Amino acid sequence: MAANPVPRLVRRPRAVLVDLAGVLHVGDEAIAGSVDALARLRAAGLPLRFLTNTTRTPRRTLVAKLQRMGFDITDDELHTAPHAAQRLVRERGLKPLYLVHPDLAAEMGPSADVPDAVVLGDMGHHLDYAQLNAAFRLLMAGSTFIAMAKNRYFMEADGLSLDMGAFVAGLEFSSGVTAEIAGKPAASFFRTALAEVDVAPADAVVIGDDLHDDVGAALAAGIPAILVRTGKFRVGDDADPAIRPTFVADDFADAVTRLLALP
Amino acid sequence: MAANPVPRLVRRPRAVLVDLAGVLHVGDEAIAGSVDALARLRAAGLPLRFLTNTTRTPRRTLVAKLQRMGFDITDDELHTAPHAAQRLVRERGLKPLYLVHPDLAAEMGPSADVPDAVVLGDMGHHLDYAQLNAAFRLLMAGSTFIAMAKNRYFMEADGLSLDMGAFVAGLEFSSGVTAEIAGKPAASFFRTALAEVDVAPADAVVIGDDLHDDVGAALAAGIPAILVRTGKFRVGDDADPAIRPTFVADDFADAVTRLLALP
Repeated sequence: MAANPVPRLVRRPRAVLVDLAGVLHVGDEAIAGSVDALARLRAAGLPLRFLTNTTRTPRRTLVAKLQRMGFDITDDELHTAPHAAQRLVRERGLKPLYLVHPDLAAEMGPSADVPDAVVLGDMGHHLDYAQLNAAFRLLMAGSTFIAMAKNRYFMEADGLSLDMGAFVAGLEFSSGVTAEIAGKPAASFFRTALAEVDVAPADAVVIGDDLHDDVGAALAAGIPAILVRTGKFRVGDDADPAIRPTFVADDFADAVTRLLALP
Repeated sequence: MAANPVPRLVRRPRAVLVDLAGVLHVGDEAIAGSVDALARLRAAGLPLRFLTNTTRTPRRTLVAKLQRMGFDITDDELHTAPHAAQRLVRERGLKPLYLVHPDLAAEMGPSADVPDAVVLGDMGHHLDYAQLNAAFRLLMAGSTFIAMAKNRYFMEADGLSLDMGAFVAGLEFSSGVTAEIAGKPAASFFRTALAEVDVAPADAVVIGDDLHDDVGAALAAGIPAILVRTGKFRVGDDADPAIRPTFVADDFADAVTRLLALP
């Protein structure tokens, strides 16, 4: 596969989009140096948005958890896949069956009595055959399929774990219906975050640990992207022939140091 | 896609491979005329094998269930995906983690303490995130991936239901490891059944309701194949441009009548 031209960074970006899990923290632990690095980014006055495809946790809980780890982050700055899914539902007047983690159910609202769409989140350990089968039957009957994310795996404290992308791919395989992805790697997910801070793609930067869904997706949306060697980063990700990050940093702190060194 | 040449049937076949669910029965109900049609086939003296990708149920239970519905079938004639998987495990000296329905666990035997393979069956309502994640981690560490089947869906009494193919496809998507399929549509599955009755592929016939995994797979293995309009058959399956059955029958009884009318 031919590599796309890599968006370069010759000046300090005008906005920074930061992936959360694997960049700022792993599980409940802040990654070394990242709390301080975020403070340095703030001190530089750059508009920030925090991106997450995590769909097990309501926004408020997520912000509280990040604040407990010492990160200076507000509700408004958090750009989540569940909210992106809700935007699609509203824009199109859909009546979904929500398959989501119980913790997220209140944020989504009740499923419709007669759904015309399936909105799939990460059910985690609440994954349930009967619910997946209900979704399958709706898809076979012509319902719209929106998946909050299609990540392959994520980093937990004890290792890489299976992410909801497996169940999106599985339902797509059996039903023949392709899901629309609300979160990363959808270009619309990055662009709505940038629209909020009124910065053009080429003037921003994404920092992420996922070669495909952070870096590759950002590059495809015209946004320079930094890959960090933390979280789900695996040896060889920094030498992929098809996806070439704007640069590769050891971790978030290193990425911030190098961004702030730009003129 | 160009259609393969369709193996024709100009003489009565020398062996008949019969798919079970959707051909002889749906759920616990025999399909009208099928008990009598099987008796006619037996009376003609043709060697028979019954194929099933059902992996929720031990062989003995399955045979008992078929006998209760009135079908004259013996244990030895049942060719199941779990047994095909066990053959692969034995041939290669693998030490698997078995992810199977609890009813099938005894037939498979215990999982290895330190597995080097994942053998996936249909867990049905016992599907469980923790177990799928254990399989995912083994695959990421280089384990062999054997799936008993990769069917998209199957017919239950209340409609089409999501089959285990969704979870095979999902694990493949997240791990990047492609599963070897033990049951249908693997050519080896059909060929070992025919080897038992010592009949060449071109001299046999498969009767099934699944356009892809029965008919398409049999044709690819060089075996003539009859599609029946029962079970998971859906309108349009009989006009697929890529998979053209040897002939299409209304149901199993019609298929048998037409086979026995051949010289």
